[in-house]
Amino acid sequence: VIIPTLADVRALDAADPLGPLRDLFDLPDGLTYLDGNSLGALPRATAGRLHEVVTTEWGRGLIRSWDDAHWFDAPRRLGDKLAPLIGAAPGEVAVSDCTSVNLYKALHAAMSTVDPERSIIVVERDAFPTDRYVAQAVAHRFGADLHLVERDNLYEALSPHVGVLLVSEIDYRTGHWCEMAEVTASAHHEGIVTVWDLCHSVGAVPIDVHAAHADYAVGCTYKYLNGGPGAPAFVWSHPRHADRRSSPITGWWSHAEPFAMSRTFTAGEGATAWLTGAQPILALAALDCGLDTVLAGAPAGEMSALRAKSVALTELFLTLVDARLGDQLEVITQRDPTRRGSQVSLAHPDAYGVVQALAARGVVGDVRGGSTPDADLARFGFAPLYTRFVDVWQAVDQLAEVLGADEHKDPAYAIRRTVT
Amino acid sequence: VIIPTLADVRALDAADPLGPLRDLFDLPDGLTYLDGNSLGALPRATAGRLHEVVTTEWGRGLIRSWDDAHWFDAPRRLGDKLAPLIGAAPGEVAVSDCTSVNLYKALHAAMSTVDPERSIIVVERDAFPTDRYVAQAVAHRFGADLHLVERDNLYEALSPHVGVLLVSEIDYRTGHWCEMAEVTASAHHEGIVTVWDLCHSVGAVPIDVHAAHADYAVGCTYKYLNGGPGAPAFVWSHPRHADRRSSPITGWWSHAEPFAMSRTFTAGEGATAWLTGAQPILALAALDCGLDTVLAGAPAGEMSALRAKSVALTELFLTLVDARLGDQLEVITQRDPTRRGSQVSLAHPDAYGVVQALAARGVVGDVRGGSTPDADLARFGFAPLYTRFVDVWQAVDQLAEVLGADEHKDPAYAIRRTVT
Repeated sequence: VIIPTLADVRALDAADPLGPLRDLFDLPDGLTYLDGNSLGALPRATAGRLHEVVTTEWGRGLIRSWDDAHWFDAPRRLGDKLAPLIGAAPGEVAVSDCTSVNLYKALHAAMSTVDPERSIIVVERDAFPTDRYVAQAVAHRFGADLHLVERDNLYEALSPHVGVLLVSEIDYRTGHWCEMAEVTASAHHEGIVTVWDLCHSVGAVPIDVHAAHADYAVGCTYKYLNGGPGAPAFVWSHPRHADRRSSPITGWWSHAEPFAMSRTFTAGEGATAWLTGAQPILALAALDCGLDTVLAGAPAGEMSALRAKSVALTELFLTLVDARLGDQLEVITQRDPTRRGSQVSLAHPDAYGVVQALAARGVVGDVRGGSTPDADLARFGFAPLYTRFVDVWQAVDQLAEVLGADEHKDPAYAIRRTVT
Repeated sequence: VIIPTLADVRALDAADPLGPLRDLFDLPDGLTYLDGNSLGALPRATAGRLHEVVTTEWGRGLIRSWDDAHWFDAPRRLGDKLAPLIGAAPGEVAVSDCTSVNLYKALHAAMSTVDPERSIIVVERDAFPTDRYVAQAVAHRFGADLHLVERDNLYEALSPHVGVLLVSEIDYRTGHWCEMAEVTASAHHEGIVTVWDLCHSVGAVPIDVHAAHADYAVGCTYKYLNGGPGAPAFVWSHPRHADRRSSPITGWWSHAEPFAMSRTFTAGEGATAWLTGAQPILALAALDCGLDTVLAGAPAGEMSALRAKSVALTELFLTLVDARLGDQLEVITQRDPTRRGSQVSLAHPDAYGVVQALAARGVVGDVRGGSTPDADLARFGFAPLYTRFVDVWQAVDQLAEVLGADEHKDPAYAIRRTVT
């Protein structure tokens, strides 16, 4: 292995065809931001667009903007815009509510379609907490059991007693990329319905829910889609479930004719049935700008260029970590690039201190706190739209400085808190 | 009755102690906006505040702003800010999700606490559609029946077979103000749990959920609270239900320790248990500015001054309509000011055309379309924070012009659509 020099890394940036996309973002000078897997960077277009929506559409248009500025259609319009990024067709994706609410809707709908004798919901033991909590509530609702299984043992957990399998395509902790088509095929072989959590994969890797024959999918938009803090999430279901699918939350926006004000509820078609009530238009406008940045790098949803850069970034990070810090940190993320997303996680006994000390040096990674038995992980996300190869170099260089000077042992880093 | 002249009306504005509050808003010149009961006006502070949140908190602070800019606490912080407007205590109100999702959570929680033999949910026949649709789904969930009753017959519908009563404090169609304490007492007398829809009352009339001994309440924030299109809604429950209350949607934000990343779900206390997942921070920032405008007119939630002006505005409207148009329109809203909110609804065979023709003349009211058997209503909201007495005069004057010239019969107004 030849270790790249700083000059090599600068040459990579100079030759990077996606390099100019960084100009779509307003990033702080001097900051190495490797936390786009948690909160995506601010697109340059967002502030101006929001100002227009607030002062013109709301301020001048007032109530008329629900029609004239197409506010009412925003959840479906943005769903259509997002659809190519997950391999969905127009009319299938709704952008509405938060990920937890969409998980609830999708899991509830999935469980309502399976044979009542299938009384188990399988979720990964180390899934992001909200997946487990929501699945626990839905299992309770249907009198089912929740089985928490190791991600490595997913296949063994599939049986004719299982109704629904909830899987994160990319594990938020490790960055492990689960093969959607294979897992779905195995689940279907046992008659199990799949619900996919795409929070850490959408915008990071190519996704094709139709090619994988997936059943349901949900995901968030404030990570690799750069929609802004807490931007509304999305939900999709395969059209083959349209007849039997029933979202438990039948608000007026999910009605086939919301303005008919009819007495009885009739679910709308496709994405409409996943809607609930009025959505935050300002947040949706910001998401619109975020989607534009992703589609600039992935025209018509073609993720190959972004994915190639993402792999190159994580490969470089691994190479530099191995060369300079291999004896001090354990690489948790898969070495096989086809099995990892756009992040690399490093195990360290004091990962929390490491990430805080790095932040003090202007390198922002992520760490989960908590008191689970697992070791803490330092997580580094490499959003290919705006991360440079020199950012990777800088991160490893500063990491070496932190570890070399034991900066992570600073008592100031004793209080833990983080948002994922 | 002495009919006020235009000079009288201008004198009312000049003497109005709340008149200067209109300067808190950015309203289009020349527009008479009487649709604050559907979408509140734009506060002047909102655009600047949003710009700061986007460019500084998101753009500079990035992931750190979840803590540093107090994003994570926003749903509870705004809940505490809103609480005095409904008579709730700190820690009881959550601002999160949309009204339909909150209706689902509250109705589901309420039904889960009642005796299974109480197998009826009572909802008003003419409630806003989403109330009926969500109640229908929750009734289905619990194997209960949905009874749709006339608002005038609410009391007769209360029986020991009823589990939950869902009522709108102010009827969105007519503006009728339902007596919360009386209805709640009657419901409790029969052992029925009450869920109050405050969408059209919060910020419009004084509300005291504790004095009324109400059980659950939900409401929206983009009408009289000026939070912006689709701003997140709120949900409240009486602390006496804390032990038995269980929100069906147990996302990580409703966990007692969301950052502990623990395997099992433990609901947080008070408002926390109503949360779900990450909320749209940009939309919440706009709502913060909207709440400031209401609290400027209702310090510490004291609504008496705003309410007095609201009554004066609706009284003036009724007086002028009676005097000039009494033979052409029917007043549907209660004549008794203690029984109406901050709107007046007028029945007319072609209400849709009337409202459209008025809009063409710069007077914005609201109308529900739809194909229900009821006659269409022209609805006029008088948000006391920014509506002037001269706006009332102008509305009636233009209404007289429209009706006098049959402008409402213009075929251009044949296509119906509206958002409430």
